[in-house]
Amino acid sequence: MKPGLRHLVSIDDLSLAEILALFEAARGFAGDLRGWAHLCPGLISASLFYEPSTRTRLSFESAMLRLGGGVLTAAEMKSSSASKGESLADTVRVVGGGYADVIVLRHASEGAARLASEYSPVPVINAGDGSHEHPTQTLCDLYTLWLERGRIEGLNVVLSGDLRYSRTIHSFVYALARFGANIVCVPQPGFELPPYVVQRLSEEFGVEPVRADATRLGDLAQASDAVYLTPQKPHQLSLFTDATNLAAAALPLERVDALYMTRPQTERHGGTEGNAEAYPKLGKRQMASESLRDAVVMHPLPRRDEISSDMDEDPRSIYFKQASRGVPIRMAILAHMLGRIELSAPPQALDMRFYPVRLGPNPCVNPSCISRTESRHVTPLFKLASRLPVRAHCGYCSHEILAPLVGCTTTHHFHERDAPAVRRIRPDHLVFLRDGAEAAHLGFRSGSRSAPVG
Amino acid sequence: MKPGLRHLVSIDDLSLAEILALFEAARGFAGDLRGWAHLCPGLISASLFYEPSTRTRLSFESAMLRLGGGVLTAAEMKSSSASKGESLADTVRVVGGGYADVIVLRHASEGAARLASEYSPVPVINAGDGSHEHPTQTLCDLYTLWLERGRIEGLNVVLSGDLRYSRTIHSFVYALARFGANIVCVPQPGFELPPYVVQRLSEEFGVEPVRADATRLGDLAQASDAVYLTPQKPHQLSLFTDATNLAAAALPLERVDALYMTRPQTERHGGTEGNAEAYPKLGKRQMASESLRDAVVMHPLPRRDEISSDMDEDPRSIYFKQASRGVPIRMAILAHMLGRIELSAPPQALDMRFYPVRLGPNPCVNPSCISRTESRHVTPLFKLASRLPVRAHCGYCSHEILAPLVGCTTTHHFHERDAPAVRRIRPDHLVFLRDGAEAAHLGFRSGSRSAPVG
Amino acid sequence: MKPGLRHLVSIDDLSLAEILALFEAARGFAGDLRGWAHLCPGLISASLFYEPSTRTRLSFESAMLRLGGGVLTAAEMKSSSASKGESLADTVRVVGGGYADVIVLRHASEGAARLASEYSPVPVINAGDGSHEHPTQTLCDLYTLWLERGRIEGLNVVLSGDLRYSRTIHSFVYALARFGANIVCVPQPGFELPPYVVQRLSEEFGVEPVRADATRLGDLAQASDAVYLTPQKPHQLSLFTDATNLAAAALPLERVDALYMTRPQTERHGGTEGNAEAYPKLGKRQMASESLRDAVVMHPLPRRDEISSDMDEDPRSIYFKQASRGVPIRMAILAHMLGRIELSAPPQALDMRFYPVRLGPNPCVNPSCISRTESRHVTPLFKLASRLPVRAHCGYCSHEILAPLVGCTTTHHFHERDAPAVRRIRPDHLVFLRDGAEAAHLGFRSGSRSAPVG
Repeated sequence: MKPGLRHLVSIDDLSLAEILALFEAARGFAGDLRGWAHLCPGLISASLFYEPSTRTRLSFESAMLRLGGGVLTAAEMKSSSASKGESLADTVRVVGGGYADVIVLRHASEGAARLASEYSPVPVINAGDGSHEHPTQTLCDLYTLWLERGRIEGLNVVLSGDLRYSRTIHSFVYALARFGANIVCVPQPGFELPPYVVQRLSEEFGVEPVRADATRLGDLAQASDAVYLTPQKPHQLSLFTDATNLAAAALPLERVDALYMTRPQTERHGGTEGNAEAYPKLGKRQMASESLRDAVVMHPLPRRDEISSDMDEDPRSIYFKQASRGVPIRMAILAHMLGRIELSAPPQALDMRFYPVRLGPNPCVNPSCISRTESRHVTPLFKLASRLPVRAHCGYCSHEILAPLVGCTTTHHFHERDAPAVRRIRPDHLVFLRDGAEAAHLGFRSGSRSAPVG
Repeated sequence: MKPGLRHLVSIDDLSLAEILALFEAARGFAGDLRGWAHLCPGLISASLFYEPSTRTRLSFESAMLRLGGGVLTAAEMKSSSASKGESLADTVRVVGGGYADVIVLRHASEGAARLASEYSPVPVINAGDGSHEHPTQTLCDLYTLWLERGRIEGLNVVLSGDLRYSRTIHSFVYALARFGANIVCVPQPGFELPPYVVQRLSEEFGVEPVRADATRLGDLAQASDAVYLTPQKPHQLSLFTDATNLAAAALPLERVDALYMTRPQTERHGGTEGNAEAYPKLGKRQMASESLRDAVVMHPLPRRDEISSDMDEDPRSIYFKQASRGVPIRMAILAHMLGRIELSAPPQALDMRFYPVRLGPNPCVNPSCISRTESRHVTPLFKLASRLPVRAHCGYCSHEILAPLVGCTTTHHFHERDAPAVRRIRPDHLVFLRDGAEAAHLGFRSGSRSAPVG
Repeated sequence: MKPGLRHLVSIDDLSLAEILALFEAARGFAGDLRGWAHLCPGLISASLFYEPSTRTRLSFESAMLRLGGGVLTAAEMKSSSASKGESLADTVRVVGGGYADVIVLRHASEGAARLASEYSPVPVINAGDGSHEHPTQTLCDLYTLWLERGRIEGLNVVLSGDLRYSRTIHSFVYALARFGANIVCVPQPGFELPPYVVQRLSEEFGVEPVRADATRLGDLAQASDAVYLTPQKPHQLSLFTDATNLAAAALPLERVDALYMTRPQTERHGGTEGNAEAYPKLGKRQMASESLRDAVVMHPLPRRDEISSDMDEDPRSIYFKQASRGVPIRMAILAHMLGRIELSAPPQALDMRFYPVRLGPNPCVNPSCISRTESRHVTPLFKLASRLPVRAHCGYCSHEILAPLVGCTTTHHFHERDAPAVRRIRPDHLVFLRDGAEAAHLGFRSGSRSAPVG
């Protein structure tokens, strides 16, 4: 990655202060959408879309045009350069080499934007990478909450629908957790938040999941258990001191601030949509629940029928307003990435260190991770979540690395990942090993005094 | 529909005076295509194309760029948002909500632009809806006639080719009839003007079809009967006092002012192209007919081989000039819709009232009407052509509503549609009923004193 | 073709002086890519792409935007107008008739850009026509050589990979030959330069192919024979006086100035990719060869794995720099075509006369030539390479015309093409005849005194 270059790959790339500063900028742009064409004349954004999209692409392109910039569009990347066998790394090196001043990337593989950011000579903005993240949608959603509710901290936000495959939801829960909002999950059964997301919420953001009293949500939650995710860090607003007290857990559901619906991501289900009948649906009847009386209803769109059209005129329905905020927030993101506005905000504080996998096969087990779908120009990366036991995530797709053994490239010893000795291995010396045979093949010997593993 | 918002869904949306004012504006733009970039800076048009098109899309986008505006392009809508199951109503609400300042829509379903105009927060321009209408092509065609002939009233215009599926032809004949031109139809056998078009011409524009002497057109009309449509209203130029007098009918064919060819719309034929051999063809031989001596030859393009290339250098061939006029006329339309030019012309005079269908199933029988292809966010509409007998057209696709019974939502009586009692039903209380069983099911009882119907 | 209109169909359309003047202009643009938006405001380019492409299309569109112009994009022409059966000639007449001020055309058929230039009212730029030519890529490549080496004349350039189907290579070798560079071919076996290219190099540019000592290129040329193309004209730098002296032929391989790799054009191989194992590959090992020590490594991109990624950081690898030069060189081309910069250079000196085929069937035997894939609006053309024996090339695709007999439209005699009498036939009276039967059918009789042919 070029030093000093800004990218927006994950919502983690922005500090809370930067996010709030972007909101202020967006609010300024929204005041007169057509009054900012002097900001980016002569600059060009390139939309590289390997998956079809209209909404996201058009809102980025509208934002760039409203800033006075030019737009290059490749809406069908899959059928053009990619069909000639070009790697993503090569594509961004070319497009970023004078064609465009910023790249907006959508891709079917998780981690694609991270990979692109490592090679691109210009800023890369993640416009959705597989089921992984969609940070600009998240900024649009948070911005809407912030405008409608005046704050994000302490809000009670219900997320409903397909929480498993929706990248929008994943970026969104991380950010809600960082801001100290309370999150209630009402998924379609079988489409709960993925374990790696829950684990990250717990390990990095101190969020504890507890079972909440779903009956308070009335018809909406009929088929589901609700899971309540509450921040536990002392400096955050903590509503629950006793997480086992379900009666207490039910408390915040008395007043839901926002209800966020999402569509079934059937294009990622591989044919198994689960029980479509059990998909949570929202209409006047569901919204009659007392706890939803003041809740704003949000949806990243497109919707199918999970929100019935009888809700469109309801004043609580703000999903079209939410969509319209995609333009000013993306104007703020583009102007920031291109260095045309300065955010008076401290830089990122999250631990963003990635380590390369130096030996052995790629330890990531996610078949749609870019580290596995791209055969060239990819060095597997990992991020360390804990040192004892060793717990790590793929640096591209964020899925957990499940190898039971780890080795040290200096001592050439290997250990089970919860052996006390692993604490002494420096992160940049770590390698992940599937079993003793693989370890032996790569020249490692057991570092434990007991019988060799494997 | 938002009050005060201009749309261009049908050529009917413009009065004759407005059309002429648009021609004056277009002529001004055409004088220096590159001199008008100050008119729309900061404004954005969005091309939402659910059917492929190059010509129409590029001419709109060229017009917007020449006005100094920006352009968003979604040339393959079918494969993007629509594939995620989004309704047209939602799409236009989003795209019109800050992304774009005007929407240019092409869609395979008849009535799609009408539906879009009901939901869009910004002006919608119909760039072709199924086999229904294509008003901006019609404006281009009329503009060309007006420039070449100095007027439209009283011109003798021959239309030839596939008159059944060509939306271009449908918008064009309505406008020719309103302007008081004489229309001669020389269709491919089996591809005559659809009955609902002829009916509307007769009911709304007072045009009477008579059989004309096709032999006057020589080789062109060899395989066809020619149908001559003549305006009968007193204030219009009426060439025929006795419509049964075929000898008289032959008179105007002595001097044809314009010959308008159209290609076979095979993509809408569903595999049955009719007898391709019998398709009217135009070449030097056909144009040798005395009555065509001064006729300009027009074609909306693309052509296949219905006009042979030996005509390209003939001074009567103006189809490429006609195509080039698409840019200035669309500049005029866009500038007008966006409120950047004022037409000194009185507003629309045609009856444009639409009534919602309040009860029962959708009475439209056209399977490619948007009211039937879109399952959500569509309330069937109708337009009343006559009150006794009740004759109505679908408010989207203009096809006739064929239900034999009508009911009143106040009295809950139903009647045959030619019963005198129907005259007392207020249009906004009308419902359409297929038969007595359906009527009974919906709670209606027979309003006639005779035996109950059905 | 409209008189006075500039087109860029072939690299031959530019004189060497014009090419060098374009390089000077490009270098000026490259100094500040964002400082030239005042050159083309109000002007519009249209990208008409009948084959998918990202790189070429985006670099043209970036160039036009950086010049302050507007861009119309039709990235999927095959699926839009063409699907309605429109001819290329009609499409360019329409798009060039007010929509756009310059047309950038990519097409799968050889000669498509030549055909377009005959009908277009605005300049046409060939962005790749089948396996034929890709002159703007060639300008980019030459520009890169010129910048890196300070000159082109006398450089030793190795071309490697698929030399048969790569249009980039074809335009490039013609230009290298004209500039007097020495060319060494190291093709994948079976994918050598096509005979018509070699013939043209010899006939028009006085280049002689000799077998070179491939072993000097080490691992790179392992599987191949190398063919060395050396200019023989007195005014050009000639390294070899005795072409049969292979020891001498080996001399220039001591110092290769540039190594140009190209990918296998599998989309044009029709399923037979040859032996992929034998495809020349470039990596650190191959580049260790002494003769390649100072060679810059170029590639038109996209690459597959013919250049391994371990070369990406090697200072000799300039393929990404080369790609980035596509924008300033295309800015220079567009500004020149649009008349916004003046090149102080004499006009084209090459013989560019084309003659129409006046009688009989199309003599071009190339099945992917536009003269055969387009059924309408195409008159076959030829270019004369020699008068005795008659040797001619298709005016569209440049393939040799193989007819054994030629006739004269004035005398109605026919001859074998090497008969002395053919020298008396004026080029514009020439017709090509397959055999005596065809000649007789077209009304020709044998012009020889000996027994009739055929």
